[in-house]
Amino acid sequence: MIKISYQDLHRTLLKVLLRLGFEKERAELCARLFTDASRDGVYSHGVNRFPRFIETIRNGVVDIHAEPQLVSAHGAFEQWDGRRGAGNLNAHASMERAISLARDHGIGCVALRHTNHWMRGGSYGWQAADAGAIGICWTNTMPNLPPWGSSEPRLGNNPLVIAVPRNEGHIVLDMAMSQFSYGTLESYRLRGEQLPVVGGFDLNGELTRDPGAIETSRRPLPIGFWKGSGLALMLDMVASLLAAGNATHQLMPDVLQETNLSQMFLAFDLSSSGSFGEALVNQIIESVKTAAPAGDEKIRYPGERTLEIRRRNLSEGIPVEAKVWEQVQRMSDEL
Amino acid sequence: MIKISYQDLHRTLLKVLLRLGFEKERAELCARLFTDASRDGVYSHGVNRFPRFIETIRNGVVDIHAEPQLVSAHGAFEQWDGRRGAGNLNAHASMERAISLARDHGIGCVALRHTNHWMRGGSYGWQAADAGAIGICWTNTMPNLPPWGSSEPRLGNNPLVIAVPRNEGHIVLDMAMSQFSYGTLESYRLRGEQLPVVGGFDLNGELTRDPGAIETSRRPLPIGFWKGSGLALMLDMVASLLAAGNATHQLMPDVLQETNLSQMFLAFDLSSSGSFGEALVNQIIESVKTAAPAGDEKIRYPGERTLEIRRRNLSEGIPVEAKVWEQVQRMSDEL
Repeated sequence: MIKISYQDLHRTLLKVLLRLGFEKERAELCARLFTDASRDGVYSHGVNRFPRFIETIRNGVVDIHAEPQLVSAHGAFEQWDGRRGAGNLNAHASMERAISLARDHGIGCVALRHTNHWMRGGSYGWQAADAGAIGICWTNTMPNLPPWGSSEPRLGNNPLVIAVPRNEGHIVLDMAMSQFSYGTLESYRLRGEQLPVVGGFDLNGELTRDPGAIETSRRPLPIGFWKGSGLALMLDMVASLLAAGNATHQLMPDVLQETNLSQMFLAFDLSSSGSFGEALVNQIIESVKTAAPAGDEKIRYPGERTLEIRRRNLSEGIPVEAKVWEQVQRMSDEL
Repeated sequence: MIKISYQDLHRTLLKVLLRLGFEKERAELCARLFTDASRDGVYSHGVNRFPRFIETIRNGVVDIHAEPQLVSAHGAFEQWDGRRGAGNLNAHASMERAISLARDHGIGCVALRHTNHWMRGGSYGWQAADAGAIGICWTNTMPNLPPWGSSEPRLGNNPLVIAVPRNEGHIVLDMAMSQFSYGTLESYRLRGEQLPVVGGFDLNGELTRDPGAIETSRRPLPIGFWKGSGLALMLDMVASLLAAGNATHQLMPDVLQETNLSQMFLAFDLSSSGSFGEALVNQIIESVKTAAPAGDEKIRYPGERTLEIRRRNLSEGIPVEAKVWEQVQRMSDEL
């Protein structure tokens, strides 16, 4: 890698975008988002990604003139159509709109369809935090991660961003749902290094730290380790901040004294979505459940086992620890 | 474990709650939430947990007469105070309120403070889905999970629930941020079994499948494996459903043809929260960063490294792959 000043980078990308026909203001922002990503160390989705972005303009995937269009408005929640415009410009406009909705309604939400790769997801978290808002956003992706119990990529690695503003530096979680990206696996392999923790399965279905073995099997592991740790932190921060309540470090580490917790409840009304929604959900489940199995473990969707157990327990009786049942019955008689 | 019918379970718990002084309607719902959890196979947070719940009423942690109170309303977003009432009743009331806000504003959000353990988190996901809403909720907990790079529990395992309604059975993700709970570790140890995957560190800082070694070190791993897989699925489902856009299985698995993505952008306005928020965020970061280190890895908050790199890159130049830079410069001249 060579080192270039921020100004040179931005100016050069801007020139390319203007020559391709981007309007001036959109070219400025697009060039800035790529340059900011490299400036912040996300080289994979900064300038190094720029040539591939240009390819997707040339092959017709990205329409440089398309701007997002409002599809439907429901107060604090809006649906927009990205019309296959530049992914980073669409995402930036959507977060801007969500922030503006939040100013009016306390919370704002934009769901965006028909958009393109947003490049560095963290950009839109920093954007929200810079505006003094908590920002949460995610994108789906093409299939590149096997569901648990399968060897076949049917899930996307669907990056999730959670940002909380702070004067001394925002807190911004920006992570895909795979523990190591293919880019990272390649870097380790080229350096001849093992991964710091297990990163996926080899062709024999064994967990491994060998990056090349995972590139071959195409079975990277879903998130955990430091990513799970980061997600736990953000959940505490958003809940305690928005509830103006206690954070984890203020709670008694004793199960019988654990109180004054903070919680978040979000609901999206679907009563107007109709049958389209049901069909889509069924297709997603079908796609995941028919992925090639890996080993003996059944591929299940979250909640599936619950229904099986519920049926069995209602017909055969509900299991309870014998000594607990005795205790409860005593309470019910003696209290 | 012994098996009891749903009716017997519910009736017995109800009797205990009424004797303790719960009002009838609240006792009915509280008994139902415990019974439903056991019916659905979440035995750890169902009837088996009931005696401990009663203990927290007796020790004064839970006030059985307290009902949640509105603190502030901002349109689609409201803050409520749980006043240390029964955790499951507070959570149920909060999700009910979030659903009602969603009917009016497309999205509804309740942040709840000063509440108690909600027992089975999934209950409030099923509740939202039964009402035809997408439900997302989480709670913080007492410290019980070391941040990455530390051996000391400073994070909570902060369970997260994401639910999507469906006629054939709702999709409900209900997971804490630790891969295995202490209850699960104990069960494996008592059965003399190894965990199916690594579940934490032993006292030497090595990843292990030995449940007893993790109970001793108190260093369980944050989520990953099937939990990461489930989270990836839910992110795709919520985004594609709410955007009325494409899901992962409908996207081309080719980086140059990956288009028509679905994305979500959520923002919470903090402009009215004032300095209280900043102080709390700083305390949370301080608490995590001062946890006892484990090995050489620095404990960082999400976004911290970004600021370090940003500073360095702005002063020393931004790293770019040499051949990419050459390519981009050529484009800027020739295009």
